[in-house]
Amino acid sequence: MINGIKPLERSLRWGMVGGGGTSQIGYIHRSAALRDGTFSLLAGAFDIDAQRGRLFGQSLGIAAERCYPDYATLFREEAARVDGIEAVSIATPNNTHFAICQAALAAGLHVVCEKPLCFTVEEAQALVELSQKQHKIIGVTYGYAGHQLILQARQMIADGLLGEIRIINMQFAHGFHAAAVELDNPSTRWRVDPRFVGPSYVLGDLATHPLFLAETMVPQLKVKRLMCSRQSFVKTRAPLEDNAYVLMEYDNGAVGSLWCSAVNSGSMHGQKVRVVGEKASLEWWDEQPNQLRFEVQGEPVRILERGMPYLDPIALADDRIGGGHSEGLFEAWSNLYRRFALAMDATDRRDRNFLADFWYPDVAAGTMGVRWVENCVRSADAGASWVEFR
Amino acid sequence: MINGIKPLERSLRWGMVGGGGTSQIGYIHRSAALRDGTFSLLAGAFDIDAQRGRLFGQSLGIAAERCYPDYATLFREEAARVDGIEAVSIATPNNTHFAICQAALAAGLHVVCEKPLCFTVEEAQALVELSQKQHKIIGVTYGYAGHQLILQARQMIADGLLGEIRIINMQFAHGFHAAAVELDNPSTRWRVDPRFVGPSYVLGDLATHPLFLAETMVPQLKVKRLMCSRQSFVKTRAPLEDNAYVLMEYDNGAVGSLWCSAVNSGSMHGQKVRVVGEKASLEWWDEQPNQLRFEVQGEPVRILERGMPYLDPIALADDRIGGGHSEGLFEAWSNLYRRFALAMDATDRRDRNFLADFWYPDVAAGTMGVRWVENCVRSADAGASWVEFR
Amino acid sequence: MINGIKPLERSLRWGMVGGGGTSQIGYIHRSAALRDGTFSLLAGAFDIDAQRGRLFGQSLGIAAERCYPDYATLFREEAARVDGIEAVSIATPNNTHFAICQAALAAGLHVVCEKPLCFTVEEAQALVELSQKQHKIIGVTYGYAGHQLILQARQMIADGLLGEIRIINMQFAHGFHAAAVELDNPSTRWRVDPRFVGPSYVLGDLATHPLFLAETMVPQLKVKRLMCSRQSFVKTRAPLEDNAYVLMEYDNGAVGSLWCSAVNSGSMHGQKVRVVGEKASLEWWDEQPNQLRFEVQGEPVRILERGMPYLDPIALADDRIGGGHSEGLFEAWSNLYRRFALAMDATDRRDRNFLADFWYPDVAAGTMGVRWVENCVRSADAGASWVEFR
Amino acid sequence: MINGIKPLERSLRWGMVGGGGTSQIGYIHRSAALRDGTFSLLAGAFDIDAQRGRLFGQSLGIAAERCYPDYATLFREEAARVDGIEAVSIATPNNTHFAICQAALAAGLHVVCEKPLCFTVEEAQALVELSQKQHKIIGVTYGYAGHQLILQARQMIADGLLGEIRIINMQFAHGFHAAAVELDNPSTRWRVDPRFVGPSYVLGDLATHPLFLAETMVPQLKVKRLMCSRQSFVKTRAPLEDNAYVLMEYDNGAVGSLWCSAVNSGSMHGQKVRVVGEKASLEWWDEQPNQLRFEVQGEPVRILERGMPYLDPIALADDRIGGGHSEGLFEAWSNLYRRFALAMDATDRRDRNFLADFWYPDVAAGTMGVRWVENCVRSADAGASWVEFR
Repeated sequence: MINGIKPLERSLRWGMVGGGGTSQIGYIHRSAALRDGTFSLLAGAFDIDAQRGRLFGQSLGIAAERCYPDYATLFREEAARVDGIEAVSIATPNNTHFAICQAALAAGLHVVCEKPLCFTVEEAQALVELSQKQHKIIGVTYGYAGHQLILQARQMIADGLLGEIRIINMQFAHGFHAAAVELDNPSTRWRVDPRFVGPSYVLGDLATHPLFLAETMVPQLKVKRLMCSRQSFVKTRAPLEDNAYVLMEYDNGAVGSLWCSAVNSGSMHGQKVRVVGEKASLEWWDEQPNQLRFEVQGEPVRILERGMPYLDPIALADDRIGGGHSEGLFEAWSNLYRRFALAMDATDRRDRNFLADFWYPDVAAGTMGVRWVENCVRSADAGASWVEFR
Repeated sequence: MINGIKPLERSLRWGMVGGGGTSQIGYIHRSAALRDGTFSLLAGAFDIDAQRGRLFGQSLGIAAERCYPDYATLFREEAARVDGIEAVSIATPNNTHFAICQAALAAGLHVVCEKPLCFTVEEAQALVELSQKQHKIIGVTYGYAGHQLILQARQMIADGLLGEIRIINMQFAHGFHAAAVELDNPSTRWRVDPRFVGPSYVLGDLATHPLFLAETMVPQLKVKRLMCSRQSFVKTRAPLEDNAYVLMEYDNGAVGSLWCSAVNSGSMHGQKVRVVGEKASLEWWDEQPNQLRFEVQGEPVRILERGMPYLDPIALADDRIGGGHSEGLFEAWSNLYRRFALAMDATDRRDRNFLADFWYPDVAAGTMGVRWVENCVRSADAGASWVEFR
Repeated sequence: MINGIKPLERSLRWGMVGGGGTSQIGYIHRSAALRDGTFSLLAGAFDIDAQRGRLFGQSLGIAAERCYPDYATLFREEAARVDGIEAVSIATPNNTHFAICQAALAAGLHVVCEKPLCFTVEEAQALVELSQKQHKIIGVTYGYAGHQLILQARQMIADGLLGEIRIINMQFAHGFHAAAVELDNPSTRWRVDPRFVGPSYVLGDLATHPLFLAETMVPQLKVKRLMCSRQSFVKTRAPLEDNAYVLMEYDNGAVGSLWCSAVNSGSMHGQKVRVVGEKASLEWWDEQPNQLRFEVQGEPVRILERGMPYLDPIALADDRIGGGHSEGLFEAWSNLYRRFALAMDATDRRDRNFLADFWYPDVAAGTMGVRWVENCVRSADAGASWVEFR
Repeated sequence: MINGIKPLERSLRWGMVGGGGTSQIGYIHRSAALRDGTFSLLAGAFDIDAQRGRLFGQSLGIAAERCYPDYATLFREEAARVDGIEAVSIATPNNTHFAICQAALAAGLHVVCEKPLCFTVEEAQALVELSQKQHKIIGVTYGYAGHQLILQARQMIADGLLGEIRIINMQFAHGFHAAAVELDNPSTRWRVDPRFVGPSYVLGDLATHPLFLAETMVPQLKVKRLMCSRQSFVKTRAPLEDNAYVLMEYDNGAVGSLWCSAVNSGSMHGQKVRVVGEKASLEWWDEQPNQLRFEVQGEPVRILERGMPYLDPIALADDRIGGGHSEGLFEAWSNLYRRFALAMDATDRRDRNFLADFWYPDVAAGTMGVRWVENCVRSADAGASWVEFR
């Protein structure tokens, strides 16, 4: 149970690149990082408009001289300070993630980065190597992965309660972009522009979320081959897709399916993961995140509730309030940032034992997302044909 | 509103092949056909064991001499009677449907047949032609298609409330055969034996149900190509699949997906259809059949209830009780049989005007199911590759 | 499992009083009684307009001479026939139930009667006595009481799975009469006219339903005292209430609450029963009748599904189709009529052993409903004060 | 939309009494107050054990000298500092609230207090007067009242979308204390001890929550009289109740019912409010707080989602993330603390215009809760008889 005591003795010194102004994603990063004194926000380059970014940083209480015009300056100047930041979060458009991650690692910073980390597996590999060389972590913000019931599912599957896994169905399918809203809405426009988001829209923006939830639940399964069919229902979005289906074959003979969409009219987020084993299934839905369906064949469906003593200790450890109350997206993110902090600290201490057993969405997770999108696009561009996963 | 008055002035004289003893499907045929005096059960060949079949028929109140040892005798003897049956329902194992249908049509009977009508498109075509030649209908028992909210959905889509259709997701995925229950259970065994069920298990047994629901809702769309990936998670079932995914492309650019499974552990039937248009979506689930979700993008989700005055007259016509009460599978089947009776009568009267606008699951619907399974198997057997729909 | 074989060797010869024309309740009586050949409809006095009643009866296939102008003639003429009816169902306005029940019993008929049986406990007692004297039953159509999951709940409670019962919450609260719809709708008008419905509207019309469900689930509890507060939100309905709350104290120290309403705007029927024991609770809702929530304190909620092998044999006995499919109001009624038939037959045979253990909504159940309404009205009229239950 | 900018130019200087150690309620106060820099935690008397309280305060980063042994010292010493706290939150056992509130107001502090403010209306009145005299506010932490959909409901009702209000049903009924868990669990024990909680258990601890939600939604209604029936199902809790029903009559003729329970076996919190008007109803449930059911009679039920543009601006103002994501209890509390801060600031500035239109759970709300419990106990102790609300 978390009760507001800092997870480490100190708050980690932290900065941000991007995420200024009315950015929702910037706020959720801050809200999560600052929760319980995990991090202290001391510096930032919040905006491509330097002046606007400075004012914004100051409105957050940051010293004027630590509100920088750009990330290069941020990293350079902070590195020169004895009290400079130790970690940075990157909440900029996708096309800039790779360069900023590289620069941050090079400057000796731990990194928290929005997905996708980058656009190609080669780039991701470069980040893995640089991260290892620098002894710094990259945490990737697959937000709902921090929800306690995801770890509950992971543990139940590891404990064999489902038997051998056969089927994983994933979904993230909202309807907010059923029409060409980007024509009037700049905050949507960049998401459908390949210059900013690389080779995909919903595959990279949405699908990697439930994909990572499923990987977290069933880490032992590896994709062997996949096929992806993608569509641009709003024509002006082509070649970027606003809807896609992916089928996967795993190394144990299991199969997976994933539907991601931004044109699922009338739906809210619709992020769901269903894992089917030979004995039982688990299903989780982000719109009612405090419930986990556990369906044993031949028995009544059970609805597990966050915060209840019958859950696994790993699922109870991150609770902030007892069962029956609703924890939401912000707590899931806070749990992630808490884990990032612990991983940063253990990495700084070269505590390999700790890290060996400690789960968080790391650079490998980020790489897997990039790799998966790359394979999907390869399949889709080959006429939705099956491709070996590589 | 249906209130027990016979839909026609007379009850149609009716017989059955199969469906004896403890057969659930036999009972639901009878329950539906006899409801409201639509049909009168006068003859049958209920069981492969002639004596058992005769006793069963008599227990239903049928005259002993009209409980026949086999369908050939049934058709021959009844044809010779001035009060012989006019229609017959076929509830035998799948491998016998084709021959019995042919014989029934040849004997001048209207037919109600379980799906699949047969195993090949060639056979289906033969039935279409024979049906036309004989001026007799074949009704196919896609049971839930008779539920009023399916017609409500059909009408809303026809009225343009969803805009252009983009996506159709279909599902029928239960968990009752997650283990190899057929080893101990004869009533399951034939379902996984190609000699009895032809080239597929769940594709033919389950998938054609939501497929037909979707066709009913969106009749204007035609499948152009599809791909099917199928698995036999219980190994002894191979080559028959107990799980499959199908992706489809329609002629208007829409896409479809279908998941069918008998190994979806812990799930009940899980039959769902979601139709997504550019403006709104509709979703129906057979486990809560009295509700239809109508989701207009940018508006609160609406839950439409069977029996309510705001529904279309076509969805209200078949109600037996007001909204708020639960109608279930039996009413859906009764609605189908009522439609079969009306179609039989209109066909007998050569009333083409009536038939032009009158919906029921007809021989074309049955043919489509056979065709679709054939295409799926062809795709699956070609390594889950895309095939033109033919 | 029910498969269409008649429950008795013969179909009981049956007639109806009322329920003609477009009456929904008439249809559901017929639909239930005729299901599976339980009864045969041979005679009736369907309408206060004799000519209309005769035409209606004939449209149902009844011989013209057995379509009678009124119930007195019906009972007299049928009694004179060697093949006269054995049982009659009464589906007339409430104010006529008592007299028709008396006449039917006096004529040597078994009776199925809509609730309320009558308006006063004295009348009910008279019916009890006449019923005993004539060795004829009165079955009361608390329709949903026939649903299998109600008997499942009864058995689980009897088996002690809930521990001592502490709380029973009941509800039947729809919104169909939120406005004064009776001004334009004759089929509603009589329901709010004391001449036709006696001393109450929603207490008698709605509340007795969940009350009887609860009595069926927890037969051992007896009401000791109660209080009732009632309102007429549509003023013209006064003194009849369109909304009421009732609190009850049972003899074991348990408490109960009941909310009934016809002005619960936007709600469908909202009939719910929740039984809370010291260890667990059960909850059933008529709008999703195939699910029963079983909530053990400290464990995940379980959702029991009709038709599943883990249920009690008593709950499986009346299934017509396997789990996962929806059975609705019509099957619940059919189960009741099946039980009425068995009780009639056993009563005719003077089979006390059979009857001792056999549950159905009998004249005592009907009396309890009348008694309960009388007590509620007494409390309400005394300023919503507590009254001893008598 | 809230994006992390402080609601005021400064963070309010803030302290706590109680809420130390593993107190969940202490954590949620801090989590809410510190969110977005609304308050700064600078001092406290966290524990009845002074040493333990000091260590805890220091673990939160508070200067050792500002971790005080008791509230009297806290208030005195902080008042003497130029940078002393401006506001204090009280999270101690109920029996101490009144004295600490008084002392805090007397020391010139704004107060945030757990409910109940005190045990008698006389005490509450004294706090109202002292608060006015000192020009300081008392905010009361009815946590879910801060959820945006509560304000959405309030606005819809004010806009007349429900018509005249007729019925309010309230519920807070969990099962966590179905057994005598207090025997082994000190954190429950004080809740059932009149020395610590005054004259009631669930009425004060649970019922005042949905009562206040309802008051927030329908502020125009005033209770005229009520009756309360209460039970102690765990006998050792008597005279404190662990279950109670309350019926209310409002001044406009509307009626209300409330069920509160700690012995509702198997239920989570079950906090629900349903407001029924002559045209439509609204229903909100704390376990799925992001959805609000809007049920217009004669139309399909609509499910409103937090964060969607179709909501009222007042419901959108406090969003921290867009619709489809889950905000939970912590955001509701943060919204309350944000409002407390704005009210404190406006009160300090004597900005009556601002305060005239500004909603938050204030000392009047706290007083109403105390008054309501007092009336309930009076009714219950008089044999569950109706009492005039005074």
